[in-house]
Amino acid sequence: MGAVPGPLALPLPPLPPIAGVQLGAAAAGIRYRGRTDLVMARFAPGTTVAGVFTRNRCPGAPVDWCRDALTMGQARGLVVNAGNANVFTGEAGRRTVAATAEAAASLLGCAPGEVFLASTGVIGEVLPAERITTALPALHAALSDDAWEAAARGIMTTDTFPKASTRTALFGDRVIRITGIAKGSGMIAPDMATMLAFVFTDAAVPADVLQGLLRAGVNRSFNRTTVDSDTSTSDTVLLFATGAAGNDPRADTTLFAMALDAVLMDLALMVVRDGEGAQKLISIDVAGAVDDASARRVAMSVANSPLVKTAIAGEDANWGRIVMAVGKAGEPAERDRLSIAIGGVWMARDGTVVPFYDEAPVVAHMKGREISITIDLGMGAGSDSVWTCDLTHGYIDINGSYRS
Amino acid sequence: MGAVPGPLALPLPPLPPIAGVQLGAAAAGIRYRGRTDLVMARFAPGTTVAGVFTRNRCPGAPVDWCRDALTMGQARGLVVNAGNANVFTGEAGRRTVAATAEAAASLLGCAPGEVFLASTGVIGEVLPAERITTALPALHAALSDDAWEAAARGIMTTDTFPKASTRTALFGDRVIRITGIAKGSGMIAPDMATMLAFVFTDAAVPADVLQGLLRAGVNRSFNRTTVDSDTSTSDTVLLFATGAAGNDPRADTTLFAMALDAVLMDLALMVVRDGEGAQKLISIDVAGAVDDASARRVAMSVANSPLVKTAIAGEDANWGRIVMAVGKAGEPAERDRLSIAIGGVWMARDGTVVPFYDEAPVVAHMKGREISITIDLGMGAGSDSVWTCDLTHGYIDINGSYRS
Repeated sequence: MGAVPGPLALPLPPLPPIAGVQLGAAAAGIRYRGRTDLVMARFAPGTTVAGVFTRNRCPGAPVDWCRDALTMGQARGLVVNAGNANVFTGEAGRRTVAATAEAAASLLGCAPGEVFLASTGVIGEVLPAERITTALPALHAALSDDAWEAAARGIMTTDTFPKASTRTALFGDRVIRITGIAKGSGMIAPDMATMLAFVFTDAAVPADVLQGLLRAGVNRSFNRTTVDSDTSTSDTVLLFATGAAGNDPRADTTLFAMALDAVLMDLALMVVRDGEGAQKLISIDVAGAVDDASARRVAMSVANSPLVKTAIAGEDANWGRIVMAVGKAGEPAERDRLSIAIGGVWMARDGTVVPFYDEAPVVAHMKGREISITIDLGMGAGSDSVWTCDLTHGYIDINGSYRS
Repeated sequence: MGAVPGPLALPLPPLPPIAGVQLGAAAAGIRYRGRTDLVMARFAPGTTVAGVFTRNRCPGAPVDWCRDALTMGQARGLVVNAGNANVFTGEAGRRTVAATAEAAASLLGCAPGEVFLASTGVIGEVLPAERITTALPALHAALSDDAWEAAARGIMTTDTFPKASTRTALFGDRVIRITGIAKGSGMIAPDMATMLAFVFTDAAVPADVLQGLLRAGVNRSFNRTTVDSDTSTSDTVLLFATGAAGNDPRADTTLFAMALDAVLMDLALMVVRDGEGAQKLISIDVAGAVDDASARRVAMSVANSPLVKTAIAGEDANWGRIVMAVGKAGEPAERDRLSIAIGGVWMARDGTVVPFYDEAPVVAHMKGREISITIDLGMGAGSDSVWTCDLTHGYIDINGSYRS
């Protein structure tokens, strides 16, 4: 939307081709004027696919479609539009999804069930299939190996910067590449925030293995981030593996999984960096919980606390609010064993303020762009980390304005 | 703090005496200058007491004290201070609580365990007992039957208006009175939000009966409200019954319970009306859930959604965000059975937008001070209602400013 990149924006890295993947973007006029809003990708025959979707009980029609298509585990195409989420659109939404998949399948020479779909944008308005199906033939004809930046930009809504990450890894005796693009929680005109991420690799990976790796990776990355605790009806992460690298698909996946996790974590943190109104990236590390799951719930309780997030927006090292957010998580915790550090400086130890605590280094840390909170529950060996951003006037501006 | 009453403020009602209760307020200089910050109440011998407290795992020292004292079920006094919450203060906090109770008990001629305590204000700073114990004798000497407004004002932090409610009811063959005062989620300098409410009646009610009625009433009132989903470490509701009305304590409690519920609901809604930055009071009624508990969880998910609350601040009838918040609750719901109304106008029915939906009456409703959201899940007979306020720039201003 031509927005100025936010204060936490990162530059787009160089994005070499992925063998077996061609992409492109076009302006289909779905909602915006003068920008791309339709992205297509073509995959080599034999491409496997894995997907993880929103847990929201009111998902959009494209999410239903992908869940069904995923049972086959094969992908030949991807079509993504921005500007209309095709959510809460009833039977009309299902017809649009089917028409889009059929049009793409006809161009790609595959079955509709091998085409994956995602939409992001306004909710509750019918997405006219013709806008997409009219634009697809020219878009298909122009697909190329190197349209990565165009694709990363074409899926943006009110994101302030395009998001991509790439890694290489050894898989069996071949070097494979993994590249992902994502869009974050932007609002459209304004409406539903949605997180979409698409990851592509030339590795050969059986669909069931791919699914396991993706689920674990998403759990370690996207599921450890939160902007405002609201879960979109359209959140989608898809991973396509073309197999063009020619590796042995039964080779050990350890290094591949590490590279995949790194790409997913990069993308997840970029989404937080571009959180609505975000001025600061916040990491919350919890140790000493009874187990890792408990640590994550405590960390999420802190990450989703409006009082903690507004304090950080105000550069206030308000550890009292962190105590509150730990306590309200409902997890095993004892006030008199609790310790809290900000920027590595312990402010509270064993249930009370540190004697002669010197606030100066913490005040300096709070003025930075990246804020670190460490919590020791003193109960056990469980630990986990989550990431969020601060809650600012910018969030209210973006989400509280009248719909146009 | 001399704040201008918020746009949702209500006037203080006339507050007649309650037989068996004397109150007063004083300026003890705990944190503020030029205002009262210490409130004391004396109860007739034989007064029973019930209490409900925060579920936060890191409660303040006064909460621990009250929980212990409550096991006796007898009360002769109450001491409340504003300006310092005595939370996360370790052994020093426990000493202050004991010293305060002992000083009050000595003045009242009772055991320390018959004195109830509450504190609200800054967290993690030692509350000097001397400030309180020095001020108590003069405060005790000036206790009177009619200092209700002084008491309601003395417990305020950044509340913009004092909060009180009163009702009468028939109990056996006597007319009894119930009067409550409360403070809401204000910040101190700025720090922890805390909800405190104290309710007084001249009815004679055995402590165990009183406890059951209070727990049920709080569950129907305060536990159905939310400002920002953050749970204070100090939330306290205490109910004192002096017995001075001389009713038969074994008489039917139905009318008493109804009056108690009305007082608690009045106070709870006043707290929401004075929520930080609140411009609109929002009621959320959920029907058609599988059971009442499920309905409440769905309603709370909507009430705590930052995207719903910012949309209402912007007077945007954004039902798409309500769909999202219903779906993320994780409760049994089906997109294609879901219906949503705002201001009594059904905007979405059975999973899609209402044909020829006329937005005009909804737009008019959104400009008002009281917003009504109705959700029909279409699943069963469960229903419940909750109340919240909108999320505005005022919330960020109050909570994001630097600590002084």
